[in-house]
Amino acid sequence: MRIGELSRRTGVSVPTIKFYVREGLLPAGELTSPNQASYGETHVQRLRLIRALLDVGGLSVAAIREVIVAVDDRERSMHTVLGVTATRLVPRYDRESGAAIEEARKRVAELVAARGWHAYPENPAGEALAAALAALDDVGHGGFVEILDAYADAAERVARADMDYVAHHVAREALVESAVVGTVLGDAIFAALRRLAHVDASNRVFGRPGDEEGATGPT
Amino acid sequence: MRIGELSRRTGVSVPTIKFYVREGLLPAGELTSPNQASYGETHVQRLRLIRALLDVGGLSVAAIREVIVAVDDRERSMHTVLGVTATRLVPRYDRESGAAIEEARKRVAELVAARGWHAYPENPAGEALAAALAALDDVGHGGFVEILDAYADAAERVARADMDYVAHHVAREALVESAVVGTVLGDAIFAALRRLAHVDASNRVFGRPGDEEGATGPT
Repeated sequence: MRIGELSRRTGVSVPTIKFYVREGLLPAGELTSPNQASYGETHVQRLRLIRALLDVGGLSVAAIREVIVAVDDRERSMHTVLGVTATRLVPRYDRESGAAIEEARKRVAELVAARGWHAYPENPAGEALAAALAALDDVGHGGFVEILDAYADAAERVARADMDYVAHHVAREALVESAVVGTVLGDAIFAALRRLAHVDASNRVFGRPGDEEGATGPT
Repeated sequence: MRIGELSRRTGVSVPTIKFYVREGLLPAGELTSPNQASYGETHVQRLRLIRALLDVGGLSVAAIREVIVAVDDRERSMHTVLGVTATRLVPRYDRESGAAIEEARKRVAELVAARGWHAYPENPAGEALAAALAALDDVGHGGFVEILDAYADAAERVARADMDYVAHHVAREALVESAVVGTVLGDAIFAALRRLAHVDASNRVFGRPGDEEGATGPT
C-alpha cells in the first residue's frame, strides 16, 4: 500500500511515519519508483507497536528504538533478547554511591536471594529497585521495606500470569515483541488497577456520604 | 539557611532551586534582606519530594505542580485529596471513541463491579486501564483480559499492603504527601520487581548454561 493508506489504516500522520523511518523505528517502504514506496502489513503492525509503546507505555523514541533493535535481531538467543527486553525497559540511573543506595542494594540482594530468583541483583531492574527504595528512605519512608515482600508476592503472581499468557497465546516468532508489549502495557495496567484499588480503599477508610466525588468521580 | 546551604543539603543546584520556586513547586524563602532569602527544613523536605517524583517517579514538572497543589490544599477533605492524588498520578488520555475503547471500558466496568470496588470506572485510573487494554487488543493481544484477574488480585494485595504501611507509619498530617510518594515510587518498585521476576522466569524457561549474561548480567 502507499504511505497515505498506511496513514489511514493506522491513524498515524504521513510526516510522523516518515519521522519514524528516519529515526530507525520503522523499516523504509519498498521503492516501486524513484519517488514512491510501498508498505505492507508488517508496517501496519510495527506502527501499532510503536504507538502502544509511545502513547500507553510512555517510552521515549530512543527507548523504543533500542527495544526494536533487540526485537529485530534474530541472531541473539531468545533468552538473551528477553533479558535485554526486561532490563532495557526500566529507567536507567547513574550508579550512585553513598550509604542510602548501598543499603538499598543490600536489601535488593537479600530479597533476590530470599526469593530464590535466578537474577543478578545488579541488573538494571535490581538497580531501579534499589534507587526507588533509596528515594523512599530519603523522604522518610524507610519503613516501606516492611511491605516489600507483599510487593514481591504480587510481582511473582503477575509474572506467573504473564508466562501463562505467553504459553497459551504467543507464537514463538512473536515472543519477543509480545514480551515488549506485555512488559510496557502490563506496567500501565497494574498501575491503573492499583489506583482503582486505592480509590476503593480510600472510599472505605475516609469516605463520607456526599464526599465520593474527589476520589471516584470524573476529575 | 541560605540557598547555598539548601543546595548543599539536598544536592540540588541553586539555579534548579530557583527554577522550582518560579514554577510553583517550592515555596519562596523568607526574605531576610532585599536580596537574600532564608530557607527551612520544610524546603529540604519538599525538595526531596520533588526529586523523588522527578527522578524515580518520572513525573513531569507540570504533574508534580498539580499534585503539590493538592498536597498543600488543607481545605479539602482527606478523602478528596487522596482521590485527586490517586487519579492525577495516571497518564491522561483524550477520551477516544471507537469499538476497541468502548469494549475495553465495558470490561473495566465489569471488573470494578465484579471486584466490588468502590470506584467509578470513569475515573482517570479506569480510563487509563481501558486505554491500555484497547492498545493490547490493537496489537493482537486481546486475550490478555484472561489474566486481568490475576493482575487485579496482585493490585489488591499491594493496595492492602500500602494501607497497612500508611496505618502503621504515617502521621495524619503527612498522609497526603505519603500517598503521593507511595503511589509514584510504589509503581517504580513494582515494575522493577516484576522485571526481576520475569528475568527469573526467562532463566528457568529459556536459559541455557553460559547464556545467563543477556537476561541477568549487568547490561
